[in-house]
Amino acid sequence: MQELQSLFDRYTQAVYEKDAAAFLAIFDENVRVFDMWAWSYEGLAAWREMVTGWFANLGADRDVVTFGDIRIQQSGDMAVASAIARFAAVSEKGEELRFLQNRLTWVVQKKNGVWKIIHEHSSGPVDGSTMKVQLRR
Amino acid sequence: MQELQSLFDRYTQAVYEKDAAAFLAIFDENVRVFDMWAWSYEGLAAWREMVTGWFANLGADRDVVTFGDIRIQQSGDMAVASAIARFAAVSEKGEELRFLQNRLTWVVQKKNGVWKIIHEHSSGPVDGSTMKVQLRR
Repeated sequence: MQELQSLFDRYTQAVYEKDAAAFLAIFDENVRVFDMWAWSYEGLAAWREMVTGWFANLGADRDVVTFGDIRIQQSGDMAVASAIARFAAVSEKGEELRFLQNRLTWVVQKKNGVWKIIHEHSSGPVDGSTMKVQLRR
Repeated sequence: MQELQSLFDRYTQAVYEKDAAAFLAIFDENVRVFDMWAWSYEGLAAWREMVTGWFANLGADRDVVTFGDIRIQQSGDMAVASAIARFAAVSEKGEELRFLQNRLTWVVQKKNGVWKIIHEHSSGPVDGSTMKVQLRR
């Protein structure tokens, strides 16, 4: 459980440091990601392209990620973690510029003694009257 | 694997027949659902309320569900299934009235010899320019 909890910390740190290699290190080679902003990324190469673009677009800003409502269920060498993730863009001076929240699901599997994310699904729910995504809970 | 595949068939049949009991039978008592239309349903009682409302709102119409791009990964008594789900509303006369597609993630666990969905996450990706959800792939 401790090892699974640490995935959240590693994710947060990698995003804050805009360290694509550290970010990708927690994902499996054959990861499938149903992302907030795109139908699907299949495999680490496609996911690498996404994260490289994300970090580059931040410019001098940083994203501070925090997780709430974390739920982890483990069975053998597979587990699921779900949470509400909060992404806050912070300026070079440390001011919070904006934020959004989404739902995050990770399915993780232990391979050669290391937990890797084999599936991620992130999204916001839809307001049926406007068909717009809700970005704040 | 066969048993896991059959969850898709049972889901499709329960929805077509608007049979809430058959629908709920494939979900775990403590299921957490990150649904397309709501932040979160926690537990089967909350989920029952959703499905009862869904089936009632269909009136004389039915929803025909089909799944594409199914991917299943199993390890011991836990597994993850992800897919693109297509929901088509069909009139009493059998005409397709409208449809939408979304991404679907199921995390399932074998309890007392029976696979149950312990976590579902369904969503569409967001178009960043309009913040509207994309309902067709």
